[in-house]
Amino acid sequence: MTKPLILISNDDGISSPGLHRLIDYVHHLGDIVVAAPDGPCSGKSAALTVNAPLRITEHPDYNGAIMRSVSGTPVDCIKIAMHNIVPRRPDLVLSGINHGSNAGNSIIYSGTMGAAMEACMIGIPAIGYSLLSHAIDADFSETEHYIEQITKAVLAKGLPKDVCLNVNFPAKCKIEGMKVVRAADSHWTEEYQQYVDPNGKPFYWLSGKIVNEEPDNSETDLYWLDRNYATVVPSCSNRNAVNALPFMKEIL
Amino acid sequence: MTKPLILISNDDGISSPGLHRLIDYVHHLGDIVVAAPDGPCSGKSAALTVNAPLRITEHPDYNGAIMRSVSGTPVDCIKIAMHNIVPRRPDLVLSGINHGSNAGNSIIYSGTMGAAMEACMIGIPAIGYSLLSHAIDADFSETEHYIEQITKAVLAKGLPKDVCLNVNFPAKCKIEGMKVVRAADSHWTEEYQQYVDPNGKPFYWLSGKIVNEEPDNSETDLYWLDRNYATVVPSCSNRNAVNALPFMKEIL
Repeated sequence: MTKPLILISNDDGISSPGLHRLIDYVHHLGDIVVAAPDGPCSGKSAALTVNAPLRITEHPDYNGAIMRSVSGTPVDCIKIAMHNIVPRRPDLVLSGINHGSNAGNSIIYSGTMGAAMEACMIGIPAIGYSLLSHAIDADFSETEHYIEQITKAVLAKGLPKDVCLNVNFPAKCKIEGMKVVRAADSHWTEEYQQYVDPNGKPFYWLSGKIVNEEPDNSETDLYWLDRNYATVVPSCSNRNAVNALPFMKEIL
Repeated sequence: MTKPLILISNDDGISSPGLHRLIDYVHHLGDIVVAAPDGPCSGKSAALTVNAPLRITEHPDYNGAIMRSVSGTPVDCIKIAMHNIVPRRPDLVLSGINHGSNAGNSIIYSGTMGAAMEACMIGIPAIGYSLLSHAIDADFSETEHYIEQITKAVLAKGLPKDVCLNVNFPAKCKIEGMKVVRAADSHWTEEYQQYVDPNGKPFYWLSGKIVNEEPDNSETDLYWLDRNYATVVPSCSNRNAVNALPFMKEIL
């Protein structure tokens, strides 16, 4: 019997340790093909490359996985993989393991989830995995059990139309369990550190922190991540706000 | 009395004709501040710049508007404008007029709508305007009446929480009217044109077309744009798929 085909991407790039750990944790569940960006693409959201060419670079197989990198964004990786890399339609797309949180409203900016959303939109079940640590030597080992469980469940049962999963793991702790929740209402403070270049001209660098607007709500991801639980957030690729149609019809 | 402050961005860049027409069409409705990308950012979605500095460049006032460009994405423009450019909190954010469609599922990749979503997430009413023509000399004049009407209504009444508007206009025709609808279920074909560089190595360029999955559905934007109507689509910045929570709790 043909094994399931699992296409893996990420936003930290082909050489990211988190990507390699994800391959290690799921390689026994199917045939693995990787299409990841050449380099870091954090914050790329669902951006795609329209005004420049793309290259595909071959890399040595890793733990049985076919490895390709793409000179574009996570969304570009999924699109060109579907066209030029995968030998058949994938049964599942995984993205990650991201070095850093995609909880709360960070999903909006996340390249990890951009790749997952892209797969979701073409009807392939998709899961983004993220660990709440940016460290290059972060310890992913606590996530293995949960990644295997979630990946197996989605391979077996699929996901509803227009829904993908945004899974976040706490770092530097024993993971206490797993919660299926929604993303917390949250926002980023708009802060920029200001510098002066050698010519006396200013430049700016994004800093800023995420603010949880509902810190006491146990139905949200940020609440449980704070308490050392993994969180599974069903996330929607469809942007329609159909509940707002009556309001708009009234005011226009 | 203080006039409303309207912050305008886009994804085609500070020199785009569509941006200048938008200023022309709304300058009498408030004080206008523009923060637009230095150059083209089509397809940038909600990408932001995390690993590079940003510059802000001053430009001469245009039709009473303060003009600034930013060396980043549409989302960067909104974020840094809120921090370093606007004299007070904007009452409204407009994005556009985009040269090209953002109808159907194109909203996912749209830098125009990335800027609008960013404003929406910080609680500022926001509207993206797009014309279905990529021509640099596109005729925007038919859109003026509708842009004024929609902008005035939103200035007066606001928008529901987490909702912004994605407004598309047909091109090269008399606009027959305006419809408040949802975005059509649609997808892009993953097509890449393949080339060979002077060294014999392949490179790829995204082509592909949008496919309307429900062409006969009169509750959708693509249906009415085909029939020369402007379309107003309420769009959600919140990605939670709360309807899928029971399914996920069952399978995990």
